[in-house]
Amino acid sequence: MRPFLSHPFDDDKLKEECGVFGVIGVADAANFVALGLHALQHRGQEAAGIVSHHPEHGFNSARRFGYVRDNFTNQKVMDTLPGELAIGHVRYSTAGSKGATAIRDVQPFFGEFSMGGAAIAHNGNLTNAAQLRKELIERGSIFQSSSDSECIIHLMARSIQRTVPERMKDALRRVEGAFSVIAMTRTKLIGVRDPLGVRPLVLGRVGEGYALSSETCGLDIIGADFVREVEPGEMVVIEDGEITSSRPFAPATSRFCIFEHVYFSRPDSILGGRSVYETRRQIGVELAREAPVEADLVCPVPDSGTPAAIGYSQESGIPYAMGIIRNQYMGRTFIEPTEQIRNMGVRLKLNVNRGLIKGKRIILVDDSVVRGTTSRKIKDMILDAGAAEVHFRIASPPTAWPCFYGVDTPERSKLLAANMSEEEMRDWIGVDSLRFISLDGLYRAAGEPEGRDPRRPQYCDACFSGEYPVAPSDKLAEGFEMKEAAE
Amino acid sequence: MRPFLSHPFDDDKLKEECGVFGVIGVADAANFVALGLHALQHRGQEAAGIVSHHPEHGFNSARRFGYVRDNFTNQKVMDTLPGELAIGHVRYSTAGSKGATAIRDVQPFFGEFSMGGAAIAHNGNLTNAAQLRKELIERGSIFQSSSDSECIIHLMARSIQRTVPERMKDALRRVEGAFSVIAMTRTKLIGVRDPLGVRPLVLGRVGEGYALSSETCGLDIIGADFVREVEPGEMVVIEDGEITSSRPFAPATSRFCIFEHVYFSRPDSILGGRSVYETRRQIGVELAREAPVEADLVCPVPDSGTPAAIGYSQESGIPYAMGIIRNQYMGRTFIEPTEQIRNMGVRLKLNVNRGLIKGKRIILVDDSVVRGTTSRKIKDMILDAGAAEVHFRIASPPTAWPCFYGVDTPERSKLLAANMSEEEMRDWIGVDSLRFISLDGLYRAAGEPEGRDPRRPQYCDACFSGEYPVAPSDKLAEGFEMKEAAE
Amino acid sequence: MRPFLSHPFDDDKLKEECGVFGVIGVADAANFVALGLHALQHRGQEAAGIVSHHPEHGFNSARRFGYVRDNFTNQKVMDTLPGELAIGHVRYSTAGSKGATAIRDVQPFFGEFSMGGAAIAHNGNLTNAAQLRKELIERGSIFQSSSDSECIIHLMARSIQRTVPERMKDALRRVEGAFSVIAMTRTKLIGVRDPLGVRPLVLGRVGEGYALSSETCGLDIIGADFVREVEPGEMVVIEDGEITSSRPFAPATSRFCIFEHVYFSRPDSILGGRSVYETRRQIGVELAREAPVEADLVCPVPDSGTPAAIGYSQESGIPYAMGIIRNQYMGRTFIEPTEQIRNMGVRLKLNVNRGLIKGKRIILVDDSVVRGTTSRKIKDMILDAGAAEVHFRIASPPTAWPCFYGVDTPERSKLLAANMSEEEMRDWIGVDSLRFISLDGLYRAAGEPEGRDPRRPQYCDACFSGEYPVAPSDKLAEGFEMKEAAE
Amino acid sequence: MRPFLSHPFDDDKLKEECGVFGVIGVADAANFVALGLHALQHRGQEAAGIVSHHPEHGFNSARRFGYVRDNFTNQKVMDTLPGELAIGHVRYSTAGSKGATAIRDVQPFFGEFSMGGAAIAHNGNLTNAAQLRKELIERGSIFQSSSDSECIIHLMARSIQRTVPERMKDALRRVEGAFSVIAMTRTKLIGVRDPLGVRPLVLGRVGEGYALSSETCGLDIIGADFVREVEPGEMVVIEDGEITSSRPFAPATSRFCIFEHVYFSRPDSILGGRSVYETRRQIGVELAREAPVEADLVCPVPDSGTPAAIGYSQESGIPYAMGIIRNQYMGRTFIEPTEQIRNMGVRLKLNVNRGLIKGKRIILVDDSVVRGTTSRKIKDMILDAGAAEVHFRIASPPTAWPCFYGVDTPERSKLLAANMSEEEMRDWIGVDSLRFISLDGLYRAAGEPEGRDPRRPQYCDACFSGEYPVAPSDKLAEGFEMKEAAE
Repeated sequence: MRPFLSHPFDDDKLKEECGVFGVIGVADAANFVALGLHALQHRGQEAAGIVSHHPEHGFNSARRFGYVRDNFTNQKVMDTLPGELAIGHVRYSTAGSKGATAIRDVQPFFGEFSMGGAAIAHNGNLTNAAQLRKELIERGSIFQSSSDSECIIHLMARSIQRTVPERMKDALRRVEGAFSVIAMTRTKLIGVRDPLGVRPLVLGRVGEGYALSSETCGLDIIGADFVREVEPGEMVVIEDGEITSSRPFAPATSRFCIFEHVYFSRPDSILGGRSVYETRRQIGVELAREAPVEADLVCPVPDSGTPAAIGYSQESGIPYAMGIIRNQYMGRTFIEPTEQIRNMGVRLKLNVNRGLIKGKRIILVDDSVVRGTTSRKIKDMILDAGAAEVHFRIASPPTAWPCFYGVDTPERSKLLAANMSEEEMRDWIGVDSLRFISLDGLYRAAGEPEGRDPRRPQYCDACFSGEYPVAPSDKLAEGFEMKEAAE
Repeated sequence: MRPFLSHPFDDDKLKEECGVFGVIGVADAANFVALGLHALQHRGQEAAGIVSHHPEHGFNSARRFGYVRDNFTNQKVMDTLPGELAIGHVRYSTAGSKGATAIRDVQPFFGEFSMGGAAIAHNGNLTNAAQLRKELIERGSIFQSSSDSECIIHLMARSIQRTVPERMKDALRRVEGAFSVIAMTRTKLIGVRDPLGVRPLVLGRVGEGYALSSETCGLDIIGADFVREVEPGEMVVIEDGEITSSRPFAPATSRFCIFEHVYFSRPDSILGGRSVYETRRQIGVELAREAPVEADLVCPVPDSGTPAAIGYSQESGIPYAMGIIRNQYMGRTFIEPTEQIRNMGVRLKLNVNRGLIKGKRIILVDDSVVRGTTSRKIKDMILDAGAAEVHFRIASPPTAWPCFYGVDTPERSKLLAANMSEEEMRDWIGVDSLRFISLDGLYRAAGEPEGRDPRRPQYCDACFSGEYPVAPSDKLAEGFEMKEAAE
Repeated sequence: MRPFLSHPFDDDKLKEECGVFGVIGVADAANFVALGLHALQHRGQEAAGIVSHHPEHGFNSARRFGYVRDNFTNQKVMDTLPGELAIGHVRYSTAGSKGATAIRDVQPFFGEFSMGGAAIAHNGNLTNAAQLRKELIERGSIFQSSSDSECIIHLMARSIQRTVPERMKDALRRVEGAFSVIAMTRTKLIGVRDPLGVRPLVLGRVGEGYALSSETCGLDIIGADFVREVEPGEMVVIEDGEITSSRPFAPATSRFCIFEHVYFSRPDSILGGRSVYETRRQIGVELAREAPVEADLVCPVPDSGTPAAIGYSQESGIPYAMGIIRNQYMGRTFIEPTEQIRNMGVRLKLNVNRGLIKGKRIILVDDSVVRGTTSRKIKDMILDAGAAEVHFRIASPPTAWPCFYGVDTPERSKLLAANMSEEEMRDWIGVDSLRFISLDGLYRAAGEPEGRDPRRPQYCDACFSGEYPVAPSDKLAEGFEMKEAAE
Repeated sequence: MRPFLSHPFDDDKLKEECGVFGVIGVADAANFVALGLHALQHRGQEAAGIVSHHPEHGFNSARRFGYVRDNFTNQKVMDTLPGELAIGHVRYSTAGSKGATAIRDVQPFFGEFSMGGAAIAHNGNLTNAAQLRKELIERGSIFQSSSDSECIIHLMARSIQRTVPERMKDALRRVEGAFSVIAMTRTKLIGVRDPLGVRPLVLGRVGEGYALSSETCGLDIIGADFVREVEPGEMVVIEDGEITSSRPFAPATSRFCIFEHVYFSRPDSILGGRSVYETRRQIGVELAREAPVEADLVCPVPDSGTPAAIGYSQESGIPYAMGIIRNQYMGRTFIEPTEQIRNMGVRLKLNVNRGLIKGKRIILVDDSVVRGTTSRKIKDMILDAGAAEVHFRIASPPTAWPCFYGVDTPERSKLLAANMSEEEMRDWIGVDSLRFISLDGLYRAAGEPEGRDPRRPQYCDACFSGEYPVAPSDKLAEGFEMKEAAE
C-alpha cells in the first residue's frame, strides 16, 4: 500500500518526471530492467513499474511505490517477471495540486488488443492530452489513470492497423508534445522519440540482445555497449536480433532539452555525444569568465553544483572546497513527520563545514534558482557559520517559464525569476552578489561555440526564454499566457 | 520486525560501530535526539533506539531496525517518547559470523534499580566483556542481549552505591577498553569517556539545555553551540542546568583514534579542535609530496576520498575531476536479492564517468585499503572505460591489524596489508602504482608537525601499527597474537 | 501488497463469489457500506472495495485484499471515502486454475463517461462474457481486469444513451447470466436484478436514506428497515429520496438460487419472505422423515449443518449435541505454511468432542457433499474418538453439476456425486449410512408444499438437476456438455 | 510491529490470561508447539512466543503479537526454530490501566545460567510478585518485563542449586499464587503445578515423545494420546524418554478453578476426568430445574452459552433455537476505528435472527454476567426484533469478586453482582426475569453430587464466594479488602 507521502522539505528544484528502460534478447530481462531503472532513479523516485513477457507465462507486471532497489531486487518479486523481453518506468511524484498518484497511474501501461497485448512506458508530456482524453471518453474509452500517457494506449486500441508498431504510429501522430516512448509486444521492443527529440533515448547492445534507455548511465550499469541515440522523429523496432528503423513523423529540426545538460541527466551520461559532466564543468568555466569575483573559496551546493564549481575554481584559480556537506542518509519520504522535523527543512540534508567557512569569502555555485527558498536557507547557514561574504553563481539562466514537456515546474507566479530582476533576487536572497550564466554562455558550454541561434535555437530552452517549440494547447485552453511574439 | 538483511556488496571498509546522543532541558527532547542521531547515522545504520523520561509518563523507549529518518520522524512514534530528557544510539550491524542482531541488542539499555531507573548508550568496545559476563551470570544476572555493553548496566545494578553516577563509576572502573557512554536517570544526563579518550564525545548548549553527541555535526543539526569536548577520563553529570565534572579513573595520556580523522567521522565535524575535512585535505597534500606521479586527472573514490583528492590536486597542480559517480539512491539493505543483483557489487553504487576518463592517466585517491576487493573492482571499471594509466593513492597507512575498540574489522588474515607488501598489493590490485601515506605523514596532517612520537604516540593507531594501548584481554584469551614487543 | 495466499485446507464447499451493498442519503455513507459488507463477508472473503461520492471531493475508491474489518474500519481509510452515497463489494477468491486475483480485479469498477462517472458492483456471473469481451476489444476497449463484470462498464461506456440508468439498460440487455448489480452516479443509487432473479437483492430504509444489500442481514447491521426485495427483472433508481422502478427486460418466471437457502446466505437473513434458518431447520425435519436411523446423538458439522441438525433432532427425538467443536481462531489465509501445517487440514479447524462421542452412535448432519474429502476426514476423526456408528445426513441433494451463475464450483469431474451413486459415495466416505435429502424434500422445506414442479421449477437447482435456466454460452463454446434433454 | 490495539467493544467477559504448551522428542518440535498453541488460542489472543533448542543451533526464540496462525505457520519463521524440544505460550492482553504490553512481556522467558540456559512459560498469577521483584532489584537483578512471571527466572538465576529443576524448585517455593509452569533446558522438558492446582496442565504421549499442554484439546490437535494430568503440587521432568516425578511443595488439598469448567476451557477439553461440554450441558439441566419459566424458545448467547442452552432445552422440553447469530468474521483487533464503528459494539458480532424471534417468549442462556453491559445490549436487540418476553438464565453464580490467579477481571466496583442484588440486576438489564445457577447447582453439575463443601470447598470459586484459597498479598498491600471471615 502506498505510504502517505509528505514532502515537508522544499526541494526547490525542477524535477524530471520519468525515466524509461527496455531490454530484449537476454535471459531474465526484468533483472536488467531493474538495474537500468536503478541507474535512472534520479529521473523519478516516487514509483516504478516493470512489464515482462515470457512465451509460456505471458505478460506479467509489477508496479510499486518507492525506490527501485527497495522493490525490484527481491528474488520473489523478480520471479514473477520471467522472460527475455521487458520494459520499465520510473516516475516522479507531481506536486499536491494535481492530486495524489494512485498505483494505477504508475507505468508501464498495458493494453490487450485484438492481435495481442502491448505495454508502453512514456517519458515526456503530451500537450494535447486533455482534448484527446475528452474525445476518447466520448467514444467509449474508459480511462484508468489520470496520466496523459494513457491516451497513447487508447489511441492504439482504436487504430485499425494490424500491427502494434503501425498502431503506435497512428497514435503518436495524433499526440503533441514531448515523448520518448518504449513499448513491447510479445516479440518486439520498440523505441520512439518525438520529432523534436526533446527527451533523450539511447540504444545499446548487451550480449546478443539490445537495450533502450533514457540515458547512457542505464547502459553502463548492465554492461551494455552504447550503439547510438534513437534519433528525433525515429522509431526503432527490435525483433529476433534485427533492428528496423522508420520515420513516422514530418521532418523537423531537433530541439533537445538543454536542462537535461544543466541538471536532469546524470553527470556520467553522454547526451548528443557530449559528456554531461564536462558540459557542466564548462558552464563553471564560462561563469567564471562572465561573472568573476574576488573570494577565498569556491564551494558547490551539493551535489548538483559540483561540476560547475570545479570549473569555476579551475578558471578563476580560487581554491575549490567542500563548504557544505550533504547527509547521505537523507531520503525523500517522511511519513507524517513531527512539526519539529518538518521545520528543519534543508538542515536535515545539508550542514555547513564550519571549520572551513569561518571568516572566508565564499563563492557558492548552484545549478539553478527556482523558488529561491533553498538559496535563502543556504545563505543563512553559511552566514551563521561565520562566512565573511557570500557570492552566488548559478549554472543556468534565470528560470522564468514553466516547462510543459515532462518536467514538474511550479506555476509561473512562483518562479522567482518570473517576478524579480537579478538585483531584486540578490536582495531577496540576501547575498553579496548573485549572477546567472547567460543563455549564450550556456549554449557555448553545451557545445555551440557561437552561442544560441535566435532564429533557430539549437535546444529547447523554453524555461529560460519562454519560447515554446510545441504550443502547449491544453494549457493555453486553461488560460496560460505565452510570451508575446514581439518580446 | 527485522528484515532479513543481506550484504551482497563488499563494502570493504572499516565500520564504526556506534554513535550516541543525549539532550536535557528542552521540550520534546526525543525529537532532538532523533535529529542528532540522523546526523550521526554514518556511525551506525542498522538500528537505532531512543529512551526518554517524562515526570508523569516515566521512562519510554523505542528501538527499531533501519535508518533514523525511517523510524523516528513519525509523529506517532515520537508521541510515545515524551519529556525533556532523552538519549539515543545508532548501531552498525556487525558481520555474519557474530550472528544476527536481535532487537534486544539495540541500545539504549535500561535497568530498573532500587533507587530508580537508568538508561545507557555506549560507543566503543569493552575488551574484557566476556570475562565480566561470565562472572555476572555466575552471580545470578540474566543477560538479555549479546552486547558487551550490557555488562555495564549489570555492574551498575549490583553496585552498592546510592546514586546512578556513583554506580556508573563503580561499573566503569571494572571494564577495560574504549567507551564513550551517555546515560540518563529521571533527572540527570551523564557523559563519560574512557581514560584514553579513544572515541569522541562533545558537549553542546541548546537553548536552556545541554546536549552530548559523538560528533559536533550532531550539535549543528539541532542548532546547539559547541561548548567543549568531554575530556578523556572525565564524567559530566548535567542536572537542573548545572554541569558537574569528575575524574573517576587513574590519570592517563590521551590516545584518540586517528581513524576517526581518516574515515569514521563526518568531514564537517571538528575533533580535538581540528576540522576533519581540513585534516583529510592535508592528508592529500602530504600524499602528493610523499608520492607524486605524472598524470592527467586526480579523481576521488567517492565520497570518502574526496577531501584528500582535493588536497592532492591542489598540491600537485593536476586537475581534480569526478571520474567516478556515486548513485545517490543506493542503500545498504537488500532483502533476498536475485543472484544477478548480488553479483553486480560495486556497479550498483558507482559508475565511471566514461566521457572523462578515456585515454587519461588517472590518480585515484581512496581513504583506505582493507580487503582490497573494492580497489580491484574500481580499477577494472576505470580500465574498462579506457583509462591509460591508474595510480592509487591511499589516505591512510596500510591497515594491518584489527581494531578492538568499537570498530568492525575483518580478521587479521583477511586484511590485505597483513599479508602483502606494498608492491605485492599493487600487483594484486593490478594498478600502475599504489602508494599509502606514511604514518608520520598522517600524524603531520593530523596536527603533529613532528610526526608520530614512537615512545608516546599521540593517537591510537593500532590498526596501522599493531600497538594496542589497552590489552585486548578477551581476544588474547581466544588466541589472538599481538605483535611482538621487539618488532 | 497482496499476501501470497494459499489454501492448504480443502474447504470442500461451493463458494458464493460476491456480495454487494450500497447506501444513499446518509452522512458518511461509506461507513454504512463497510458495516453492510462486514455483514455480507460470508459471500466473499478475499477482497473488498468501496466507492463513494462527495459533491466537493468527487468519486473516491479504496480496494483491499482481506477482510472488511481489517481494512475498512480504520479512521484514516474511511476519511478518504467521504460523501452521502457509496457502494461496495466483497469478493471470493476463485481457485488456482483461473490465476491469482490482482487488485485490479476487485470491484466496484469505475468508468468516466462523457456525462460523468459511474461505479458498479456485480454479484453473479455473466455466461456470455468471453464473447462480449472479444467483441469489445476488437472495437478498441481496453480491459483492466480478468473479471466478467468489467464487460458491463465497457458496454455502458459505448452506449449512446444520455443517462447512466439508460446506459445500464443498454448494457444489461446485452449480457446473459445471473446478475444483481448495484451502481452509483454522482447523485443516484441504482439496483438491478436479472430477469430470473437468480441472486438476491433487497431494499431497505435507513433514516432519510435508502440501502441496497445482497441480504437482509446487511440491513440489520446498520439498523435499516427492510422495505422489499428488488424484483427479478427490475431496476430501481434512487435519487433525492425518490425511488423509480422500471422493467428493462422481457418478462420471465423467477428462478431464485435454491442453494442460497441451503448454504450461501446467512441463517439470520430472510429470502423471498422466508427465514433462512427456518428453511434449514425444516430441511432437517424433512431429512429425519425421509432418512431415519437409530442413533444416540445428532451432531452438526459446524457451523453450516447446525440448523438442519436441530431440525433432525426435533423431528426424530434423538438428542442434539455438539460432537464437533470449531476453532474460532481459524482463518483462511496461511502464508507459505510449513509442510506439517499444510497436512493438518481439517484438524486445524475442527476437533471432536471426545468425551461425548466415545461408544455412541452418531448422526452427522452436513449441508452438502462436494468433493467428499472433508466428509472422509471428519468420519476418520469421529471414529478415532471411539464412535460406535457414523451416519451422514446431508441437507441438500447430491451436487452433480457445476454452477455458472456466480458460484465457485469444482469441474464436474471432481464432484463426487457426478461420478458415484449414493451407495458408492457411502462406501468411499466409509460410513455406516449416507443419505441426501430429495429434491422434492428440499423444495418442501423451501416453502413449496407440492415439491418441485418439473415443468416449471420454482428455483434454479442446476447444481443438483443439471437443468440450466440460462444456457452457459461461453462454457458450451469451451466444450462443456450439458445434460441431454431426454434425461 | 505491534498494532495499536483498541478494544472498542465491551467484551464483558472474564479472560483467561495464558495458555502453555511444550513438547520433547519429536522432529520439528516447534511446529507441534505452534499447533498446540493454536488449539489453546482461546486462553490468550494478544501474543504468542515459542522457544526451541537444537544441539547445533542452540536456543532460538520467536515472539509475536497476534494470533498463532498468523505468525507461527509460516515456513520462514518456523525454520528459525529448529530442534526436538520446544515450549510456547499464548498471552491475553490485559486492559488499558495496566499499560500496553511490550514484546518483551511476551513469554517464554529465557535465562542464561552458569550451567546453561532455560526457558519458562507460566500460566497463572503470582500473588507476591511485587514484593519479590522489589527484593530482587535491590540485590541487582535487572527486570526486562512488567510480568510477574519474570520473578521466577530471576529467582532461578540466583539459586545456588546445580541443575535447572532444582533451581526451579528453589524459585517456586518462594512464590505464592497460581502457576502451571512449563520449562525447558537443552535436554529437559519440565512441568509443574502449584500445590492447589488452580490452573490445568496435562501430559500426553506423541510418537516417541511427550507433550505438556494447558488443556487436552492441545493434545488432540497434534494427535497425542492423553496420559494423565500433572497433579497439583507435582513437578515432572522429561528427558531421554523418561519421566521423573517429584513433589517439591508441602501437601495441600486441590482447589481447581471452577470457572475453567464454566467458561475458560474449550468444550472439547477434559478436565479432572470430566468433559467440559458435558459439565456445561449439565449446568443447563440444573438451571432448568432451579429456574424454570414458560417460554417458546431456548436460545444461547453464542458461542459460550450453547451447551447450557442445549441442556436447559433438554430438561425443560422447550425447543432449542439459534436466536442470535454470530458473525464469524469478527476479530478483536480494530486499529483506530471510526466513531461509528466504535459505537456499533455488539452488533458487529451478533445479529438477531428476526424471522425466528418475532412474537416469541425467549429464554436466553449466557455463561456469566460481569459488567452486565453486553446483556443489556443483547436484550435491546432481542426486543427490537419483536420478542414478546426475554428471560435470562446464567450458567454461573453472580461474579462478585475479582480473580487474582491468572484471570483478567474488572475491579470489584465494576462487577455488577458486587453492587446489586439479583432483582436490581434484572431491572437494570431490563428483562422479564434473570436467574443465576446456585453455587451448589454449579458444583453438582461439576461432578459433586452433594454440592459445595463449605468447610473444604472442592474448587476455587473465589470470584463467586470471595473465599481466596491463597492470600493475595500484593493486592492486600495495595489496599484490597477481602470479605470478612464472619460473612
